[in-house]
Amino acid sequence: MADTPGRTEAIRILGEMIAGIPVAMFTTVTERGWLRSRPMVAQSKPFDGTLWFLSEAGSRKARDVRDRQQVNLCYVSAGRDRYVSVSGLATLVADAERVAALWNRAYAEWFPRGVADPDLLLIKVEVEEAEYWDATAHRMVRLSGFTGPSGAFRDLEPGTGI
Amino acid sequence: MADTPGRTEAIRILGEMIAGIPVAMFTTVTERGWLRSRPMVAQSKPFDGTLWFLSEAGSRKARDVRDRQQVNLCYVSAGRDRYVSVSGLATLVADAERVAALWNRAYAEWFPRGVADPDLLLIKVEVEEAEYWDATAHRMVRLSGFTGPSGAFRDLEPGTGI
Repeated sequence: MADTPGRTEAIRILGEMIAGIPVAMFTTVTERGWLRSRPMVAQSKPFDGTLWFLSEAGSRKARDVRDRQQVNLCYVSAGRDRYVSVSGLATLVADAERVAALWNRAYAEWFPRGVADPDLLLIKVEVEEAEYWDATAHRMVRLSGFTGPSGAFRDLEPGTGI
Repeated sequence: MADTPGRTEAIRILGEMIAGIPVAMFTTVTERGWLRSRPMVAQSKPFDGTLWFLSEAGSRKARDVRDRQQVNLCYVSAGRDRYVSVSGLATLVADAERVAALWNRAYAEWFPRGVADPDLLLIKVEVEEAEYWDATAHRMVRLSGFTGPSGAFRDLEPGTGI
C-alpha cells in the first residue's frame, strides 16, 4: 500500500500508542468460527506499518491464520488507560534472517529452543484498521490513514478471508 | 448447560482469573469478516458462567453481535502476567431490571445518560471456551470444564454464527 501522508501519520500515531507495551493479545478465528486469543511478544522495533510476531509452525494460531487471515491485535496498558485494537491480515512467512533480526531476549523465554529453531515462523500482520480508546471522550478513535476517510474495510479476494 | 463438577470448577477458576480486572477487550467480527475490538466495563459481580456487558443499541458492536454471535473477550493484567481469552456466544438482551442490577459507578463514566437510558442494552456472553496464560510454562491452559475433555467447540445451528 502506498504511504500517503495520511497513512504515514496513522503509522506514527499507532506506533506511539503501542510503544512500550511488551505483549499483544492476538485473536484468530478457528475453523468453526469461534474467536480465540493468546498473548504474544510484541516487536521491540519501531512500527513501520507491518507488525511481526513469532510462532511455531505447528501452533494452533498458525493453523488458524492458514485457514483465515483476518486477525485482531489488542494492546492494553491499563495503567495508562491505553486500549488499542488493530485489525489486520496475517500471513505466515518463513524467513530465518528476519527471525534473527527480530529476535531479542524477550522471545527466548517463550521459544526456549532459541532463534535457530527450524520450527519458528513469522506471522506478518498488515494493518487494515486501527482504533484507540480516547479516555477523555470515552470512545474509540479510528486512525483513518490506514484505509482512508470512508472507513470501509476493503473487500478481500474470495478465499483470502472468511 | 448443566453445571457438571468440571463446569463448576472451570467457572470458579475463570472467576478468579478475571476478578479485579475492570476492563475487558471485546472482539467481534464485522460484516466483511474483519475482527474489531474495544474496551468494555467488566461486571463487578462474581462470575457465574455468563458474562454481562452494557452497550448502546445503536453501537457497532451491537450490530456486529446481531450479525454474528461468536465473540472473544480478553482480560489482561500485565503486572500480574495474567492473560485470559474467553470464547463465547453473545446475545443482545433488553432487560432494564438486569441493567439496574449490574449498574455501578464504573458504568456512569462510559454511559453518561445513566442507568435509565432507554438505549442501554445488555450483551450476554455464554462462555464456550476459556484459556489462560500459564506464565511458568509459557503456554495457554484450557479450562476444559466449559466444553468437556474433547476440547471441541460445539457446532452451531446454521445462521447462529458465521
